[in-house]
Amino acid sequence: MPTKKIAVILAGSGVYDGSEIHEATLALLYLSEQGVKIQCFAPNIEQTHVINHLTQKESPETRNVLVESARIARGNVKDVKELTADDFDGLIIPGGFGAAKNLSNFAFKGSDCTVNDDVLTAAKSFAKAEKPIGLICIAPHLAPKIYGRGVICTIGNDENTAAELEKMGAVHQSCDVSNIVEDKANKLISTPAYMLGKNISEVAVGIKKLVTRLIQLTNT
Amino acid sequence: MPTKKIAVILAGSGVYDGSEIHEATLALLYLSEQGVKIQCFAPNIEQTHVINHLTQKESPETRNVLVESARIARGNVKDVKELTADDFDGLIIPGGFGAAKNLSNFAFKGSDCTVNDDVLTAAKSFAKAEKPIGLICIAPHLAPKIYGRGVICTIGNDENTAAELEKMGAVHQSCDVSNIVEDKANKLISTPAYMLGKNISEVAVGIKKLVTRLIQLTNT
Repeated sequence: MPTKKIAVILAGSGVYDGSEIHEATLALLYLSEQGVKIQCFAPNIEQTHVINHLTQKESPETRNVLVESARIARGNVKDVKELTADDFDGLIIPGGFGAAKNLSNFAFKGSDCTVNDDVLTAAKSFAKAEKPIGLICIAPHLAPKIYGRGVICTIGNDENTAAELEKMGAVHQSCDVSNIVEDKANKLISTPAYMLGKNISEVAVGIKKLVTRLIQLTNT
Repeated sequence: MPTKKIAVILAGSGVYDGSEIHEATLALLYLSEQGVKIQCFAPNIEQTHVINHLTQKESPETRNVLVESARIARGNVKDVKELTADDFDGLIIPGGFGAAKNLSNFAFKGSDCTVNDDVLTAAKSFAKAEKPIGLICIAPHLAPKIYGRGVICTIGNDENTAAELEKMGAVHQSCDVSNIVEDKANKLISTPAYMLGKNISEVAVGIKKLVTRLIQLTNT
């Protein structure tokens, strides 16, 4: 059986303005443990803003999403413009505010959000090719944009966030941090991770399940 | 039995100018899985420099080690000036160039390096209290500064780096990425991680062993 190839879309490096570092790293760990070939991608755009992670206040500087994502990817990250499902068996998008600030503007506009064109085009190519996608933490807000109305996903149990997803057409299912929700028709898996998790070992359980199931779905 | 408390000293966020993100995150994961209480620390100093992780070139900006470390620690990181072995059962220092650029200047001065005063004072307090320390990747260059001549450690099998450590008084033992070297007299454990590892699942094996052994040593 040929080695599976999985793409990971990052959104910077750090929970408050980029990809959540633990979620992204754990996704890479469990993918690597399954022996798949991993390639990271990110949009080559300026971050919406930079947050000082010590004070949680905005910092007067600019950083580039692709350049900062390279910190998590140890340099091996490509422009998401290059990403198409033709070259990969599945896609994972970790959470962190960057997913809702840089990949889309969901953090600011809720259900009225728009998604970065290149991210949306890439993700839709997986949906069209019926290749599985795994969305972690807040990233499932992208699901109704990728799949349209009726897509089933979870962001945990936060009622306000779930309501925004439902306004966008998603069917939200509550889920605890150690579990995943699967939309079988769409081959979409989601897990709440730090939307609910109190520590890294809690979020690891759900992310490991998500990765394991994603790899299984590449064979169906 | 009371919950163990383990301190982790970070050096920024990113392999080329800070703490290696995978190594730091994996240390936190395996500590968390063992149910210990974790507290991250970092020096409140400017980074020696900032490296664009996409191009590996120096970037004309300044970043603070404590502030950037907060990205890995999800905000929960304290000034290393506050760290003493009185409050903890063990200490871990992940690798990445930041360990050899911000915690010390080993990356530039080799065996003539000096160590940040606050980092050295904190680490020496663990050695004096006979509480275990785990050093990952390039961080074992700190061992002879902490323990003095004769300390046993590994940075993998790179002969030039090992020779620098030996000039400083260390006894270097070659070690593969899936193993640890233990200096029983000093309760010091080290593992090569990305000094040798080709991917994250390889480095995870050694880091998990290091964390497991560190926790065992807190009971001796």
